[in-house]
Amino acid sequence: MFLGKVVGSVWSTKKIDNLTNLKFLIIHPINLKKAPLTDVVIAADVLGAGVGETVICAYGHAARQAIYPENPASLSIEAAVVGIVDRMDVDPEWMEDES
Amino acid sequence: MFLGKVVGSVWSTKKIDNLTNLKFLIIHPINLKKAPLTDVVIAADVLGAGVGETVICAYGHAARQAIYPENPASLSIEAAVVGIVDRMDVDPEWMEDES
Amino acid sequence: MFLGKVVGSVWSTKKIDNLTNLKFLIIHPINLKKAPLTDVVIAADVLGAGVGETVICAYGHAARQAIYPENPASLSIEAAVVGIVDRMDVDPEWMEDES
Amino acid sequence: MFLGKVVGSVWSTKKIDNLTNLKFLIIHPINLKKAPLTDVVIAADVLGAGVGETVICAYGHAARQAIYPENPASLSIEAAVVGIVDRMDVDPEWMEDES
Amino acid sequence: MFLGKVVGSVWSTKKIDNLTNLKFLIIHPINLKKAPLTDVVIAADVLGAGVGETVICAYGHAARQAIYPENPASLSIEAAVVGIVDRMDVDPEWMEDES
Repeated sequence: MFLGKVVGSVWSTKKIDNLTNLKFLIIHPINLKKAPLTDVVIAADVLGAGVGETVICAYGHAARQAIYPENPASLSIEAAVVGIVDRMDVDPEWMEDES
Repeated sequence: MFLGKVVGSVWSTKKIDNLTNLKFLIIHPINLKKAPLTDVVIAADVLGAGVGETVICAYGHAARQAIYPENPASLSIEAAVVGIVDRMDVDPEWMEDES
Repeated sequence: MFLGKVVGSVWSTKKIDNLTNLKFLIIHPINLKKAPLTDVVIAADVLGAGVGETVICAYGHAARQAIYPENPASLSIEAAVVGIVDRMDVDPEWMEDES
Repeated sequence: MFLGKVVGSVWSTKKIDNLTNLKFLIIHPINLKKAPLTDVVIAADVLGAGVGETVICAYGHAARQAIYPENPASLSIEAAVVGIVDRMDVDPEWMEDES
Repeated sequence: MFLGKVVGSVWSTKKIDNLTNLKFLIIHPINLKKAPLTDVVIAADVLGAGVGETVICAYGHAARQAIYPENPASLSIEAAVVGIVDRMDVDPEWMEDES
């Protein structure tokens, strides 16, 4: 899984049928050293994550299992928010080593 | 999933049988800061996405489920357009932070 | 899927049993702007792609389904040629934008 | 699989139901030449890996099989610690070649 | 699949049960132009690949199918050696183009 920050949403009306009613967030992957990562990931969300929140995202089957556990294989998604982060504890030594 | 721009199409006559009649687009992955991403992805499309449109693409099972939900495992593809983007809402603070 | 150019072949006699009689090509992923991509991918091929040809390759289940649709899960491969490219149509505006 | 160093933990109360009671570590992927890798990976752990330890992590089904072998498909995770490293033997010639 | 050079081994006593008795190699992915790739991959091996040998590695289901074809889903691995390379034929034109 990866850590990301919610930076927005994306809307699509012309889409694969099984995606109807799903909300898609724009997630900016982050790292703890604030190195720039330019890509964004589009992730489905059922937890109600808001812009500015830090989230844990998962790919593949894990994402489909998060969004629709009754029938994950029926979904055409491969990324989803699986948790909204409350707190991170990071080893201070490591932060210094690499900065 | 990732965001991409449709930049063209690719044709193949000598191909795996299960790909007959599928349309393959050349997708240029994009990000919101317009940083250059040099790779292109080849994605199957059944939504009729045209050159210049922004699309959401998915990989793996999600792609096969988008193209042929009756029997996704029968397809030899692992990328597909799952939605054509109408609108994106992006946090303006984040746009400034990183630019 | 990705676009690649066939640049060679690789031979292995000591290999996993289910790979017997499979041909493995060395594929150099390409992009449309000719930016250098240094990695190569090893892909199984049943279409007879030759050195210098441009091909579409797929990963994972899609690759196994291409090579052995009767029993894809029995194969220890995760990349295959799924099509030999005849023609690509690329938006000229995009080519200029990014060059 | 990849090698990583445990650098911290992450907590989430608002999360997908099937993640209840799982511990999530922040893993910094490492390589043997100490080249900086800026991303971190979030991995589930049932082995009790502590901050500073070097671990082997796996992705996808392998991760779910590590955490919950009774029903791996029920989990919304795609990365897990599968081993805590005791010792590595690395070819000294290779270390010199590349340094 | 990718090409790699075996550069060492890694030992773990505290590990997921289904990994007992498996041998884990440290693989340095290589390319044909000798561009430096800093990451290493940890791959299971049943072929007896030794330090210095060039191997073909596969990810995901393909790796589990290589190591334990009787019940691949029971393994918590996602990378394995699937072949030891005897010979590679590479187009000399391509080698010159890119060097």
